[in-house]
Amino acid sequence: MTGPSAPARETPTRLADYGFHYPITTRWADMDIYGHVNNVVFYSFFDTAVNAFLMQSGVLDPARSPVIGLVVETRCAYFRSVEIPAPVTAGVRVARLGSSSVRYEIAIFQGTDPTACAQGHFIHVYVDREHRRPVPLPGALRAALERLMSVPGID
Amino acid sequence: MTGPSAPARETPTRLADYGFHYPITTRWADMDIYGHVNNVVFYSFFDTAVNAFLMQSGVLDPARSPVIGLVVETRCAYFRSVEIPAPVTAGVRVARLGSSSVRYEIAIFQGTDPTACAQGHFIHVYVDREHRRPVPLPGALRAALERLMSVPGID
Amino acid sequence: MTGPSAPARETPTRLADYGFHYPITTRWADMDIYGHVNNVVFYSFFDTAVNAFLMQSGVLDPARSPVIGLVVETRCAYFRSVEIPAPVTAGVRVARLGSSSVRYEIAIFQGTDPTACAQGHFIHVYVDREHRRPVPLPGALRAALERLMSVPGID
Amino acid sequence: MTGPSAPARETPTRLADYGFHYPITTRWADMDIYGHVNNVVFYSFFDTAVNAFLMQSGVLDPARSPVIGLVVETRCAYFRSVEIPAPVTAGVRVARLGSSSVRYEIAIFQGTDPTACAQGHFIHVYVDREHRRPVPLPGALRAALERLMSVPGID
Repeated sequence: MTGPSAPARETPTRLADYGFHYPITTRWADMDIYGHVNNVVFYSFFDTAVNAFLMQSGVLDPARSPVIGLVVETRCAYFRSVEIPAPVTAGVRVARLGSSSVRYEIAIFQGTDPTACAQGHFIHVYVDREHRRPVPLPGALRAALERLMSVPGID
Repeated sequence: MTGPSAPARETPTRLADYGFHYPITTRWADMDIYGHVNNVVFYSFFDTAVNAFLMQSGVLDPARSPVIGLVVETRCAYFRSVEIPAPVTAGVRVARLGSSSVRYEIAIFQGTDPTACAQGHFIHVYVDREHRRPVPLPGALRAALERLMSVPGID
Repeated sequence: MTGPSAPARETPTRLADYGFHYPITTRWADMDIYGHVNNVVFYSFFDTAVNAFLMQSGVLDPARSPVIGLVVETRCAYFRSVEIPAPVTAGVRVARLGSSSVRYEIAIFQGTDPTACAQGHFIHVYVDREHRRPVPLPGALRAALERLMSVPGID
Repeated sequence: MTGPSAPARETPTRLADYGFHYPITTRWADMDIYGHVNNVVFYSFFDTAVNAFLMQSGVLDPARSPVIGLVVETRCAYFRSVEIPAPVTAGVRVARLGSSSVRYEIAIFQGTDPTACAQGHFIHVYVDREHRRPVPLPGALRAALERLMSVPGID
């Protein structure tokens, strides 16, 4: 689906370009009438991988954290289709860290192909849970995110 | 969630900027733990509105059309949260029409606010269903898409 | 799909058998590879219709109500397929009201057919939000539910 | 959520009661506003596990099989909540095999608890893909299903 008449697009990245790898199993309902995983589902993979990183790092408790990340922008470019029932692996890295925002880059891999089936970004702005106003990133969160900024192959 | 430390972003568009308006009811499952419609769901709104336009225009039969649109890129910027159970309206317009691809722009509106809660784009490349190779847009499809290119307020 | 070798099943109900009617638009992602709305999605229709009734009746604020309904059992029988992009209508009634639980019956209708495409039930047990222990149904909730117990055609 | 005022319900089963075990990772979007996996999602687990068994057994190719299973009834009883981001395991067994139908029983397990968080059934009627009329179960499918009928602890 990326023939000569498709818009020029970026090069697929590799799993080694990402510091956090998260396996996600595919589901029957991910498949649309065209027999592959629907475009919307990739954003669910992104959301799942980013929040899993935060929960595993101990810096997000979804039911209780006083500071939460709201999504202000997402994007995904699709290179190859993903099939069920094989699992995928999501790679996550931090591309930019602001005072109250973070830009994640995420890519989806399947099978033995070392290049991404799809890749994109996901920008969180951190807000206080009650009033939903931007707040500085808490220290522990910032430290966890900084660890995802330098990864083998990209620095 | 768009305070001073958020990345600079484009201006929210208005429903009148879009030639096709499609009402979508919200669902309980659209809501995430933060009490608003989850970011992933907006892409389901995009997908639904674009394909509804194509089906209502008689240029897509998902089970049988020999030429189908595969998604190669999507993006969404989020300005305000969307709440359940009120419905939303999706606005759709065609921003660019290539030989085998089309760039849709879509925005999501809720309630009496005339500006978008979220907006983005969705690029389809048309392929033959069997071999998934790009093909020229069929004439009837191109004609339907051209009608979405000139809309009040943007030409 | 209900030929001679299918298990004997109940008779499809009619929309007039239900006291609350709720329109739900269908989505592209509802469709599975077989070209109709996937079986799982009907439960999202059930969940949406029941909670919409509660929110419209002013007895549920999902983010704040101190007493919430947890689902302890659901069931659905499928009679005919549902197609996109046409909307459906969900019918809801209350079949049984206990001290802390309620059994809803829900059916899904599409197009001009007066009989259900699918129907089933949904049992909520009400608990206090914090400790998740069963509590008596609050008075306003019970009153709203009682109004859904007597409907034309079933009493 | 199963206190004294809840309806009497069956006993939770154990993973050893099921012949096919299928791991499924949970997703951010599975969680609803109450902070646990939403009731609807369990049916997606059921659908995923049953179809994964069929695909892994080589008796279902979703895009091409001339005989496909349509769902005519599903049910689920919920005993304990499921949390993200930990994965679940689905157990699947065949409880009844008719000439053109099969009743699967499925249960969902999480963590070290040997008893099910939720369990239910899923009835498929097999039809020819084109006319959607019931047909006898193909031989290879029947053989695969028979292997799931005798499992440790239930025969």
